[in-house]
Amino acid sequence: MDPSVWLAERLPGVEAALEAALPVPSECPSRLLAAIRHLLFPGGKRLRPALALAGAESVGAPAERGLPMAVAVELVHTYSLIHDDLPCMDDDALRRGRPSVHVAFGEATAVLAGDALLAIAFGALAEAKTEPAHQVAALRELSRAAGAAGLVGGQHDDLAAGARDPGAIEGVHARKSGALFAAAIAGSACLCGAPEPALATLRRFGIQLGVAFQIADDLLDADADAGCSLVAAIGAPAARDRAEALLAASLRSLEPLGAPADPLRALARLAVRRSA
Amino acid sequence: MDPSVWLAERLPGVEAALEAALPVPSECPSRLLAAIRHLLFPGGKRLRPALALAGAESVGAPAERGLPMAVAVELVHTYSLIHDDLPCMDDDALRRGRPSVHVAFGEATAVLAGDALLAIAFGALAEAKTEPAHQVAALRELSRAAGAAGLVGGQHDDLAAGARDPGAIEGVHARKSGALFAAAIAGSACLCGAPEPALATLRRFGIQLGVAFQIADDLLDADADAGCSLVAAIGAPAARDRAEALLAASLRSLEPLGAPADPLRALARLAVRRSA
Repeated sequence: MDPSVWLAERLPGVEAALEAALPVPSECPSRLLAAIRHLLFPGGKRLRPALALAGAESVGAPAERGLPMAVAVELVHTYSLIHDDLPCMDDDALRRGRPSVHVAFGEATAVLAGDALLAIAFGALAEAKTEPAHQVAALRELSRAAGAAGLVGGQHDDLAAGARDPGAIEGVHARKSGALFAAAIAGSACLCGAPEPALATLRRFGIQLGVAFQIADDLLDADADAGCSLVAAIGAPAARDRAEALLAASLRSLEPLGAPADPLRALARLAVRRSA
Repeated sequence: MDPSVWLAERLPGVEAALEAALPVPSECPSRLLAAIRHLLFPGGKRLRPALALAGAESVGAPAERGLPMAVAVELVHTYSLIHDDLPCMDDDALRRGRPSVHVAFGEATAVLAGDALLAIAFGALAEAKTEPAHQVAALRELSRAAGAAGLVGGQHDDLAAGARDPGAIEGVHARKSGALFAAAIAGSACLCGAPEPALATLRRFGIQLGVAFQIADDLLDADADAGCSLVAAIGAPAARDRAEALLAASLRSLEPLGAPADPLRALARLAVRRSA
């Protein structure tokens, strides 16, 4: 399948759902709302929402069933970018060629915009019109991915100084990238009522893909922070081999799901083999 | 009723439930876990958890049914204290006589500890063993209270400079304090399956009580930030009258609930008439 056609058909629905999830101007101070929107529109590649929609299809449901999860993970991803860019964290003044949120709006508003996005992400799932038991299952996936065992713990260890072996680096990638990939895909399958064995398969796939994606990112980024880059630790050729091995393992782990998982497979190849 | 006896019987259960909601050491970097726990143990007066438990009783349920909401609102309250104390926000080095989290652990870890607490709060509700439709309703209350229309929007406007009229000051209090009080009480009633009219009553009570509580706080605090203090705007005697009027209005709004709301009434008087 051609992922660009698949994406072109589905991503406009994600944009509309993201818009619908944000506060209306009467409910939110205008400067805060502008900061909340700053990195969301235009956003990045919308890889996590695409994975969520493909997760729904992988368990035989229409992509739209995964939309609330697609929105939630993109909001969580955006919150994490805003907080990671703060001066006390990675201190990045630029994000996707534009000023970071704290540069454009000040640090206090950047902290608050991130906080709001995290709360809105959970709200987007809680407000979904679907089976409550499925919603609660999806909310659990999101909470675990966003919390201390996932995104936040990974960012903490990413910032911590000290020598790093390849296993520790992949452990950071698994929590900083893999956990949210897994939540996007498995959480979306939760919304579709998928059974636990399929969820376990999808979580495993998401973690492996997240690590492979992060290695691919470091291969593309000459300025990668050497503190937590497999490229810096073992060199580009070995890191490229490792990303391919993880991609292959992730694709193998999808075998039980058969043809409905083809969009996930195509997105996985696209994510790991992309050029800048 | 004697609220001190009522509290002494119920708060130990809150402490245990808070402990149970936190990540286990194997799932969380130890320094991050210490920062997460710093303001939680020992905590403050546990007023929001107490309101959650009284909210359950006010709709005829046992207090324990409100425990997941009690935990969630205390975690959200603690996250908001950590982020509000940051140098880019209120820049407070002390909290309850001890170093703020960013002073004790550094700014990056403080931002992350707050982020983790917010994610864990939603997780505590999502992991509750109760009717999923009730959980989802409670999660909606929490998301609205924590988001741009509640806590975050209130803190944004609290930080914004400029002259303030009493209405604008109470608008900040309603979002910074009232929204989370309302979520504690109405969210807990959601977990007990309370019908919408009771929820609307409890939300209105929570907002009024939150504003009265914040005015009482400013009356106790000689160093209150004059930017958003009704005491600074209209003077202590008029502010004291206003807090009493709001307390009376909040108590009147509880009338439809009858005697089961007595613990809420006792907590309201305690919260507004406390001395330092």
